[in-house]
Amino acid sequence: MIAAYSATSQARVNAALETLFTAPSPELARLYEAMRYSVMNGGKRVRPLLSYAACEALGGKPEQANGAACAVELIHAYSLVHDDLPAMDDDDLRRGQPTTHKKFDEACAILAGDGLQSLAFSALLDPRLSALDAEIHLQMVSALALAAGPAGMVGGQAIDLGSVGLKLDQKALEYMHRHKTGALIEVSVKLGALASGRAEKDELKSLQTYAQAIGLAFQVQDDILDVESDTETLGKRQGADIARDKPTYPALLGLDAAKAYALELRDQALHALRPFDAAAEPLRDLARYIVDRRS
Amino acid sequence: MIAAYSATSQARVNAALETLFTAPSPELARLYEAMRYSVMNGGKRVRPLLSYAACEALGGKPEQANGAACAVELIHAYSLVHDDLPAMDDDDLRRGQPTTHKKFDEACAILAGDGLQSLAFSALLDPRLSALDAEIHLQMVSALALAAGPAGMVGGQAIDLGSVGLKLDQKALEYMHRHKTGALIEVSVKLGALASGRAEKDELKSLQTYAQAIGLAFQVQDDILDVESDTETLGKRQGADIARDKPTYPALLGLDAAKAYALELRDQALHALRPFDAAAEPLRDLARYIVDRRS
Repeated sequence: MIAAYSATSQARVNAALETLFTAPSPELARLYEAMRYSVMNGGKRVRPLLSYAACEALGGKPEQANGAACAVELIHAYSLVHDDLPAMDDDDLRRGQPTTHKKFDEACAILAGDGLQSLAFSALLDPRLSALDAEIHLQMVSALALAAGPAGMVGGQAIDLGSVGLKLDQKALEYMHRHKTGALIEVSVKLGALASGRAEKDELKSLQTYAQAIGLAFQVQDDILDVESDTETLGKRQGADIARDKPTYPALLGLDAAKAYALELRDQALHALRPFDAAAEPLRDLARYIVDRRS
Repeated sequence: MIAAYSATSQARVNAALETLFTAPSPELARLYEAMRYSVMNGGKRVRPLLSYAACEALGGKPEQANGAACAVELIHAYSLVHDDLPAMDDDDLRRGQPTTHKKFDEACAILAGDGLQSLAFSALLDPRLSALDAEIHLQMVSALALAAGPAGMVGGQAIDLGSVGLKLDQKALEYMHRHKTGALIEVSVKLGALASGRAEKDELKSLQTYAQAIGLAFQVQDDILDVESDTETLGKRQGADIARDKPTYPALLGLDAAKAYALELRDQALHALRPFDAAAEPLRDLARYIVDRRS
């Protein structure tokens, strides 16, 4: 079920993203190539899927969420490019391919990341991608800026970097994840919902509860996979987080309790979707997939 | 004249900027401190001044441009933080103070820059700073994203990095500057004009011509000062650009011709403002100041 929906979403967002990387002049070719390389890399497009599925859950057409889907993926891509830099996580591989600063160079990777963030805001408002009411568009820009910024994703990365080697308790770990990965997952759902043009306040609240639960479930499962998967399946070095002494759920709770927690979060997510009809099925399937996936 | 207007603009934008750096939690204190350090550094606030002055030139109240003024300064500040990084220009000093990665660390500087870019979009729409019509706000977001992004400022930095040691001709040098510094100066004027709520198409066009001319004049004068000023006045190492074999106008045209060119650009800027009344006087004063300044 989710595999088919995911494939359709991937194709849709990839087609939309492809339109964004045409360099306006030969002088800018390398920068655009680096941005394109950082984005068109066979990523799973979980965040775009969330935008499309949230839009559909409220009765919108998925195409209405094209701008939102591109925007959240561009923010995600930029965060990975900067996260991989030598001064940050210093990763050479991303999904089995050289990271952007390895393929190009460090300065180019910094600028490509910077450019992708700007491009996310351009994409969100790009009339070629989606044409929405001005008030709705403004809400989307504000929500994206907040979620991507220092009180959201960037803040989470700062907390993460500051907590290497520290013994975080569960509350502190969740505070970090709610920012580092949760904020962008939440806003992916919110932007998709807003793009439907029909989002009511209580529906946005239910979707937020859903998004918070799957965001955390995603992270718990990532930590579990870091312990259990082999390097080939994962596309990055197995045990990488543990080797760096980063705090993880299995380290904190034990592996079995971490698995039980992931399932509990899945159930919270499904519970939050009870007011929605069959149009929310892709969102439900995703919640189930997140804790079932092996990579 | 411009000194008084500049002091007022500085006070106005600094007061508005100060509201943006309150960390939402102790965990985020260091990141917010690094962002604040990168912005509240005694900068001249030329871009905010342009936003305020453009808004006033069209009969708006300067406060209407508060969001715009903060946004362009935040983009400017983030670009400096990233530009100073070891992988980029590798600068230890900025306005006589340690650069952000020297005062904090490299990872923190990368994240502070990333966060400042998001914060710029938040500030642009912050109802505490300015409340404008939704359609106008949307135009402002699109213009800022375009100017800051890969087809604007970030693109200019990429071209600049790619041209160290190359013999650029005047056309290539101007293409680089039109992106690297020109795009943000242009959009500072445009956002201010839009914030007035009264910008007509031909007025925007005249202001764009003005902004392009002063943007280039600013750069030519910077290159001249790099040759002529001492390190103390400039707050950075004198001759830094030449030492790096970066292309400059004095190197390309000779010092006297570069000075004549700066004056010619000033006159182009003043000419573009002929349709405007006395309310555009601060913009005229700034054009004169740019080529007269000694630092």
